[in-house]
Amino acid sequence: MYEGAVQELIDELGRLPGIGPKSAQRVAFHILEADSEDMTRLAEAIRTVKEKVQFCETCFNVSEESRCRICQDPRREDSVICVVEESKDVMAIERTRSFRGRYHVLGGAISPIAGVGPDQLRIRELLNRLSDDQIQEVILATDPNLEGEATATYLMRMLGSLGIKITRLASGLPVGGDLEYADEVTLGRAFEGRTPLG
Amino acid sequence: MYEGAVQELIDELGRLPGIGPKSAQRVAFHILEADSEDMTRLAEAIRTVKEKVQFCETCFNVSEESRCRICQDPRREDSVICVVEESKDVMAIERTRSFRGRYHVLGGAISPIAGVGPDQLRIRELLNRLSDDQIQEVILATDPNLEGEATATYLMRMLGSLGIKITRLASGLPVGGDLEYADEVTLGRAFEGRTPLG
Repeated sequence: MYEGAVQELIDELGRLPGIGPKSAQRVAFHILEADSEDMTRLAEAIRTVKEKVQFCETCFNVSEESRCRICQDPRREDSVICVVEESKDVMAIERTRSFRGRYHVLGGAISPIAGVGPDQLRIRELLNRLSDDQIQEVILATDPNLEGEATATYLMRMLGSLGIKITRLASGLPVGGDLEYADEVTLGRAFEGRTPLG
Repeated sequence: MYEGAVQELIDELGRLPGIGPKSAQRVAFHILEADSEDMTRLAEAIRTVKEKVQFCETCFNVSEESRCRICQDPRREDSVICVVEESKDVMAIERTRSFRGRYHVLGGAISPIAGVGPDQLRIRELLNRLSDDQIQEVILATDPNLEGEATATYLMRMLGSLGIKITRLASGLPVGGDLEYADEVTLGRAFEGRTPLG
């Protein structure tokens, strides 16, 4: 529809996740009218990320070095590994400051619909790490949805025989929420997982 | 939160319109995991648009040359100018194939809230074009909202004394819509603008 360069930009933007044709057009026109320096910075940031950022060779978190900052940090506990789906999840857990061990990023979750099986995830790499005697606990912190639960169940079966303690993050009522608005499954889990007080 | 390059990309993406912090993070991780060639193409498309695309010196539509394709086209009528807010509107009207004249892109609409007054729009440039004797009609095709109507009213007052026919796009029921779902203003306009049949 548009002349060459504008249409090309709209096409490229439209391929990004969550950006439909209308948004792509709006963003493209913003880029057109925006300050040239700002847009050079954006183009540069895309290039830099592709050049500099890689996946940590130990835990597969994003990193600008061959091993990420968390894997390099000598103050973290080597005895606990927290298994997550994505690097985003590492950041979410780090923000809580309630975990001081190491991570393992699977790179997704088992999803027959999306065609993701166990072989597409970094499960073999996890097993290699667990052959290390130091590890005493594996926390399965995959998402509390269908795919995440399936992945946790699969891992539980794979790791069950290794003699390592396997735990799963607690399900229950979100703090600050209203009990009456909780869905049935969440409320059911909150009952099952109820803890003694005092 | 993230290491240097990733966070920088999230920041740059978050400055684009309609992309909040969550989307910026999602898009950044997509870029990280996507094919390097595709992402180089995206970065290149941004650069190319900033380098090659300019505004037509006559009508201010986006163009890769000093005058846009529509202004260069000898088959278009010189006697009618259609005034729109943005280049996007030119494309929308071109798609209808119901207009064969020339355009003038104002670069926005009068909006006291957004701090846009008549001086920020290309109204002086429009007046210069109208000093040409050839022009017989100016179609005001600004958006049918508060800002667009205000802009049309302002232009009507500015151009009223030039002896040129000034028209405004019809307001009325959208084709394919249900009468009962039309808002009151639109339905009122449809009554006011009713046309004789047969």
